[in-house]
Amino acid sequence: MKVLYCCTALLLLISIPRACEGGNILVFPSEGSHWVNMDILLKALHSRGHSITILCSSKSWYIKDISSSYNILTVPVENPVTQEIMSKMVAKLIEYEQGALSLSGFIHMGVGLFSKFVDIHRTIGELVTAIVDDKLLMRNLNESKFDVILADPCWGGGVILAKYLNLPLVYNVRWVITADAHFSIAPSPLSYIPVTGTGYTDKMTFSQRVTNMVLHIITQTQNSLVAKLVYQKITDKYLGPGYDFKELMINADIWLMRVDFVFEYPRPTMPNVVYIGGFQCKPAKPLPQHLEDFVQSSGDHGFILMSLGTFVTELPSDMANEIAAAFSKLPQKVIWKYKGDRPANLGNNTLLVDWMPQNDLLGHPKSKLFVAHGGTNGVQEAIYHGVPVVGIPVFFDQYDNLLRLKDRGGAKILTLATVDKDNNFLKAIEEVLNDPSYRTNMQRLSRLHRDKPVKPLDNALFWIEFVMRHKGAAHLKAQSYRMPWYSYHSVDVVLFLTGAMLLVLLTTFYLIRCIYTGMCKRKVKRE
Amino acid sequence: MKVLYCCTALLLLISIPRACEGGNILVFPSEGSHWVNMDILLKALHSRGHSITILCSSKSWYIKDISSSYNILTVPVENPVTQEIMSKMVAKLIEYEQGALSLSGFIHMGVGLFSKFVDIHRTIGELVTAIVDDKLLMRNLNESKFDVILADPCWGGGVILAKYLNLPLVYNVRWVITADAHFSIAPSPLSYIPVTGTGYTDKMTFSQRVTNMVLHIITQTQNSLVAKLVYQKITDKYLGPGYDFKELMINADIWLMRVDFVFEYPRPTMPNVVYIGGFQCKPAKPLPQHLEDFVQSSGDHGFILMSLGTFVTELPSDMANEIAAAFSKLPQKVIWKYKGDRPANLGNNTLLVDWMPQNDLLGHPKSKLFVAHGGTNGVQEAIYHGVPVVGIPVFFDQYDNLLRLKDRGGAKILTLATVDKDNNFLKAIEEVLNDPSYRTNMQRLSRLHRDKPVKPLDNALFWIEFVMRHKGAAHLKAQSYRMPWYSYHSVDVVLFLTGAMLLVLLTTFYLIRCIYTGMCKRKVKRE
Repeated sequence: MKVLYCCTALLLLISIPRACEGGNILVFPSEGSHWVNMDILLKALHSRGHSITILCSSKSWYIKDISSSYNILTVPVENPVTQEIMSKMVAKLIEYEQGALSLSGFIHMGVGLFSKFVDIHRTIGELVTAIVDDKLLMRNLNESKFDVILADPCWGGGVILAKYLNLPLVYNVRWVITADAHFSIAPSPLSYIPVTGTGYTDKMTFSQRVTNMVLHIITQTQNSLVAKLVYQKITDKYLGPGYDFKELMINADIWLMRVDFVFEYPRPTMPNVVYIGGFQCKPAKPLPQHLEDFVQSSGDHGFILMSLGTFVTELPSDMANEIAAAFSKLPQKVIWKYKGDRPANLGNNTLLVDWMPQNDLLGHPKSKLFVAHGGTNGVQEAIYHGVPVVGIPVFFDQYDNLLRLKDRGGAKILTLATVDKDNNFLKAIEEVLNDPSYRTNMQRLSRLHRDKPVKPLDNALFWIEFVMRHKGAAHLKAQSYRMPWYSYHSVDVVLFLTGAMLLVLLTTFYLIRCIYTGMCKRKVKRE
Repeated sequence: MKVLYCCTALLLLISIPRACEGGNILVFPSEGSHWVNMDILLKALHSRGHSITILCSSKSWYIKDISSSYNILTVPVENPVTQEIMSKMVAKLIEYEQGALSLSGFIHMGVGLFSKFVDIHRTIGELVTAIVDDKLLMRNLNESKFDVILADPCWGGGVILAKYLNLPLVYNVRWVITADAHFSIAPSPLSYIPVTGTGYTDKMTFSQRVTNMVLHIITQTQNSLVAKLVYQKITDKYLGPGYDFKELMINADIWLMRVDFVFEYPRPTMPNVVYIGGFQCKPAKPLPQHLEDFVQSSGDHGFILMSLGTFVTELPSDMANEIAAAFSKLPQKVIWKYKGDRPANLGNNTLLVDWMPQNDLLGHPKSKLFVAHGGTNGVQEAIYHGVPVVGIPVFFDQYDNLLRLKDRGGAKILTLATVDKDNNFLKAIEEVLNDPSYRTNMQRLSRLHRDKPVKPLDNALFWIEFVMRHKGAAHLKAQSYRMPWYSYHSVDVVLFLTGAMLLVLLTTFYLIRCIYTGMCKRKVKRE
């Protein structure tokens, strides 16, 4: 892939100011909801007087209308991670989940998805190359004396850049490439820790545990492949031999994990993992007048809000019609974030919107139900505001996210394949609205989630600043990642001890046999 | 062991008030420094309006001059855990460490110690029996509607009582019986987690890792023996069949762990483990006038303080003389907590005291050095105040505690066997006083330790109150402890998958052989 260098001169005109009071933070970019999350942290860091410098791909999809208070260093690259590619992938998934794809089609899609996925990581690799190859930009970055790099290890670029610039590294993280980040950093017994995509809880049958292990092996192989095909090559090229990319990945100072243990099943963790799940949630602000009027018009029935996230902008028309018809039969008002064609049978009670203030709507006293795709952000917001959920998961972690609510009695899940059949959608909505246990359970989760000694966002800010104050957090990083796997798992020690024990047993046995044989011989001789 | 019941009537006269504003806390007793720690928590809880009820053995050694604001329920028992038994054990250890014991003597002592140790746990068992068999006391406890039980799982009594009374359980903990509590609650890879008593760090050679595993097996066998010989019997008797004591032990709601990761090596942990290391430390208060005058008289040289803890009240006279002689050669003033005979050659610069305000002295601007035995409390206080240490460990975790300081460049360790030889003591003191790196390193640890989003004591109080508010912390407890070991470690799954893989391989091999043989036969036939 060829990289454009034409804008180097322009970049150098931007001098990176060093905040006098606060620290100096370099941000490796991410996209989609990952960037939405990162931006929340950056806004908070900026308001605390820190200087923020963002390295940004010239083909970035999300980093556009961004606060002018940041220093944006746009790096010219050729291949973008576009919204269109992602939306097409999602449309294909919806097609599959509705049963329109054959098995061979699915395998074809799977292979295609993985290759597309490697391509996405290659664009990140291309960005790193563009940054590091730009000598003047690098001099600029070096002279800026950053205190820390912020990155999302869903992509591996930040890791390499942090090592290259020799800067402390803080993750805003849930995934390492495709796998739950805990699998990289903490011991994760597969006996009670379900792998994302299995749709299992922390209580598994034997056959579920077998599937769980098989899927774990597949996911980790995928991760290793991506690391090998993309990031290890760049590591070798720019850091020289002797650096293992996966080791560098684990060696971050602080992992700001975007879950908490009200949402996630309890599992082992490490001292440098800080849980910030729900850091984006806040008390609801007043709604815009037209929305406030609309939800007030619902009276005691309250209102429902529906959003299927960033990627699902439209649905197959029969599915959209079925949903619209179901909504029209309800006494509640409905606010539906939907960019597709207006369904023919849309009820008077339903308002289609391009965008909605989701957090403010969920926190409104009249909100009764959230129809959601199960993205982490939406699920965390539902927990924060204690609103029950009807989930229609589309891909990746969404089913598993919703399952965590369902398992605690706060949600009902529909599959894309059955949502438009047998009145399933209407039945699910009515069940969750009419059975008070759903709301009670979500309210209980909300109370647990909010009851923390430090608010998640404040915790995130504290630990980023901690790393800046102390130039890392070496004292919180375990020695584990420095060991070969057989030493880490004590395989060598167990083999040695077993061998030694066998040797002692065999020697004893041999000696006893010798003595016994000698005694017998003497006896025979005497006889 | 016979238990006295004579005081039942007296007990019933004490009615347990339920604090209107705060919660109602039941405390299972501990002794020695464990009780000193617990008492700090209780004072803080009481000052927040909670009602504290302490179950106390009539032969308690530490729970005596206790605040009258607590409700003390004295339970009559026959066998005390006396200070004398412990002090005799320690004197025996000092004798051994000075080389006065032969190997056979040491083995004899080891067996004797373990039997004494089981006896101590039996006295805790006796206390539980005395409590549960007292029907009226139990009715009283049941009617008091406690919100939580506080216990130290160094002894197992609180666990059984919590289950019997069906109350949430919070631990103030560092040890589960004899082993570091992490080994019970969190995955603990022996490849980089040193077992207490090995004197290893988190970077071990192969042979150290072998010893580490052997010692781990011994420690865990000891724990299992104590659990089986003492606590499982009581569990069977009072909770009925089907309850495994070790499972109950792990099932506590919150583990307030008395370490932090400035002191302890980073290692895996669990969501319901809260680190409160240094919770007893606080800024120094002004000293009593006579002490202030004494330390001020040290001028710029400052002063040294020495304490070998609760159990070492006196030392062999030649050792005491050697220490006194070394101190007398220093320009510093010395405050020495020592109850033995006044050493003949005590210098004018040395003040012997029965008791000292250790925290206030360590926090005094003129404190230069702490000569300590390496108990957790003293080490944490040295870290908090950033004072370098010369350590003379006596038994159990003390060497390992001091090693954590030495490994970070903040302490020098002497053994009891060599402290009075070749001017070792004087040399060590002078080295730590004159080499500024010791102080610099301790000051760095102090900064790291103090830089937390929530102060350790506040964190402890928050989580105790959290458990009271939510009637436990079930959402933070992993499923691990409910599984048999082979499921937890996925042994069954690995065996199944290996078997399945072998079957597929063998079948394929067999089929290929059949086809090949068939083809060969046909070929031979044709020829």
